[in-house]
Amino acid sequence: MKIVCEKEKLLKGINSVVKAVANKTTMPILEGILIQTNDNEIKLTTYDLEIGIEYVMNCTIQEQGSAVVNATMFSEIIRKLPDTDILIYMNENNLLVIECEGSLYKLATMNPDEFPELPKIEVEYSIKLEQNILKNMIRKTIFAVSTEENRPIFTGCLFEIIDNKLNVVSVDGFRLALKSNFINTKVNDFKAVIPGKTLNEVNKIMTDSYDTIVIGVAKNQALFEMENCKIVTRILDGEFLNYNNVIPENWDTRIRVNKNNFQNCFERISLISASSSEKEKKYPVKVTIDIGKVTISCTNQTGDAKEEIYVATEGKNLEIGFNPKYFLDALKVIDDEEIYVDFGTSISPAVIRPVDDGEYTYMILPIKLKD
Amino acid sequence: MKIVCEKEKLLKGINSVVKAVANKTTMPILEGILIQTNDNEIKLTTYDLEIGIEYVMNCTIQEQGSAVVNATMFSEIIRKLPDTDILIYMNENNLLVIECEGSLYKLATMNPDEFPELPKIEVEYSIKLEQNILKNMIRKTIFAVSTEENRPIFTGCLFEIIDNKLNVVSVDGFRLALKSNFINTKVNDFKAVIPGKTLNEVNKIMTDSYDTIVIGVAKNQALFEMENCKIVTRILDGEFLNYNNVIPENWDTRIRVNKNNFQNCFERISLISASSSEKEKKYPVKVTIDIGKVTISCTNQTGDAKEEIYVATEGKNLEIGFNPKYFLDALKVIDDEEIYVDFGTSISPAVIRPVDDGEYTYMILPIKLKD
Repeated sequence: MKIVCEKEKLLKGINSVVKAVANKTTMPILEGILIQTNDNEIKLTTYDLEIGIEYVMNCTIQEQGSAVVNATMFSEIIRKLPDTDILIYMNENNLLVIECEGSLYKLATMNPDEFPELPKIEVEYSIKLEQNILKNMIRKTIFAVSTEENRPIFTGCLFEIIDNKLNVVSVDGFRLALKSNFINTKVNDFKAVIPGKTLNEVNKIMTDSYDTIVIGVAKNQALFEMENCKIVTRILDGEFLNYNNVIPENWDTRIRVNKNNFQNCFERISLISASSSEKEKKYPVKVTIDIGKVTISCTNQTGDAKEEIYVATEGKNLEIGFNPKYFLDALKVIDDEEIYVDFGTSISPAVIRPVDDGEYTYMILPIKLKD
Repeated sequence: MKIVCEKEKLLKGINSVVKAVANKTTMPILEGILIQTNDNEIKLTTYDLEIGIEYVMNCTIQEQGSAVVNATMFSEIIRKLPDTDILIYMNENNLLVIECEGSLYKLATMNPDEFPELPKIEVEYSIKLEQNILKNMIRKTIFAVSTEENRPIFTGCLFEIIDNKLNVVSVDGFRLALKSNFINTKVNDFKAVIPGKTLNEVNKIMTDSYDTIVIGVAKNQALFEMENCKIVTRILDGEFLNYNNVIPENWDTRIRVNKNNFQNCFERISLISASSSEKEKKYPVKVTIDIGKVTISCTNQTGDAKEEIYVATEGKNLEIGFNPKYFLDALKVIDDEEIYVDFGTSISPAVIRPVDDGEYTYMILPIKLKD
């Protein structure tokens, strides 16, 4: 193998694939990047046995071949080289040689034949959307993915097509986030639960652009395809929550509030709420709704806090307890100026919806207030 | 106590004093800020028994008094309040009340009488200089302060006045950094070793401005005085190195090199050097000087690296080993375009000096190369 490649171009490829490099593995080859030539292209591959990433790019090939090299070392060296052409080749001692101006690096390599093959995927369903749209959908839901491994299905986001609409849903037992988007081309209904970890990496690789991404779903795997880059992931097995049944359709109390003001109140109050000792982590804040006013308050051993905010209210007065973190998580990702918050009784979930975005729904379970 | 204070002004004061708040202390009062009124001013004080900081500012005093409140909690709440006037007072239950628009916080307080007094300092010597100058002097020397507590004197920087020139010196057994600056007003000779920790905090509080700072030195303490802010610190006891005797005056080999190019070479090569296992931390890079050329190289189990750079050379050829980190530390803080590096034999220290700044000297001990 012998190639010549522009530094910035190569670095872009490396930055995309390093996200699937295994760390803390007993198989050193998974800490490597597989470099393969193919005519006038090279392909970079990484695979931690859960997520696999391939990146293809043009470059000058002087000799076909392949190599596996430690990903961290390779990427750090390339990153620090001057912004010019880099010559990379295997020498007679099986070392990967990197030459650029006055710099000469020789790195130990591993056997490319031992690099595990990415699963072959026979796509059954696929949808195409703009990267900025998928990025936004992931950002608005991923934080509510469960971190508890005892119910693995909820460590992923449900991707569901119904009536040509993509719904992305996450739920962790305390709250649920749902973001929807119509797909412009005709697609068949399907469901797949994609691991949260994969979506985090996909999100980092996508740009906030109109460039498209194709999501392909097979029996046990899914595929995200961008221009140069392909991400393969397993999908999670099991029955996801039938979320439509749990989101309340009606409300007894509704407030309409400026999102930023509401967020600031919760940020301040959570300083007091969070300052209670670790054991009392779920010490709630009390939300009190009177006509035209919401009061958020919290008392614990370090102090006492009260926030009053004037809002439009409809329906009954109410007193209800919440973990302020769960409010904040959603408020932070909402870009709209105004939101509705709908409540039932003091033991039923509250629902946040942006006033001007019917495609986002966030539901939070209340916490019982101490008497 | 009852005061009204602009948020941004108060926050600036808090940000200055929080640097001397103790963490992990058995005396909770040291985790507090002492707030004291005095006519139409308030004074904020923190003291971790090593460094003490006082900050004085004007504000509207409605009732004289004092309070001690947990610094972290107080600063976080003030930071998150809207940018407007804040009313702060003690209520009948000894809680500190913070009121601002719809926000009302009540924090537990501690007894101001229990807050330890800052040491009274009778300044024997003092010098005045611009903050930007002192900032630069600290930045160029502090990284070479020793972290080993078994010789505490070297965990500080020597501040020494000789012939109206301030020399700041740090040394850790492997390298030495010296930055000098003439003082415009007449000052007497003195010496004091200021703890590195203090200088770090002083550095964070100073601005990169022409505003002045006064350094006052007493028998066991030193004092840094800025417009609103006063920092008190102990000084270190013991005999500092007689540094003039150890910096070589002559050289056998001299190179003149572009600082950035040289730094880039060392940054790349240290990827290989640092990748050797922890036990071999001091695995050296080899610096080889031939006429017109420096070669920096390193070999270990992960790979093999060589950097060649064309430079102006004078004197003998040489082969010498170094820990590249010690080169990098100095190269990172040098702002000049070109440097001299002067060498003696392969076992004598090398000295870096900017070509256009005779006031900075950095000396590094070599490491024996393995055969």
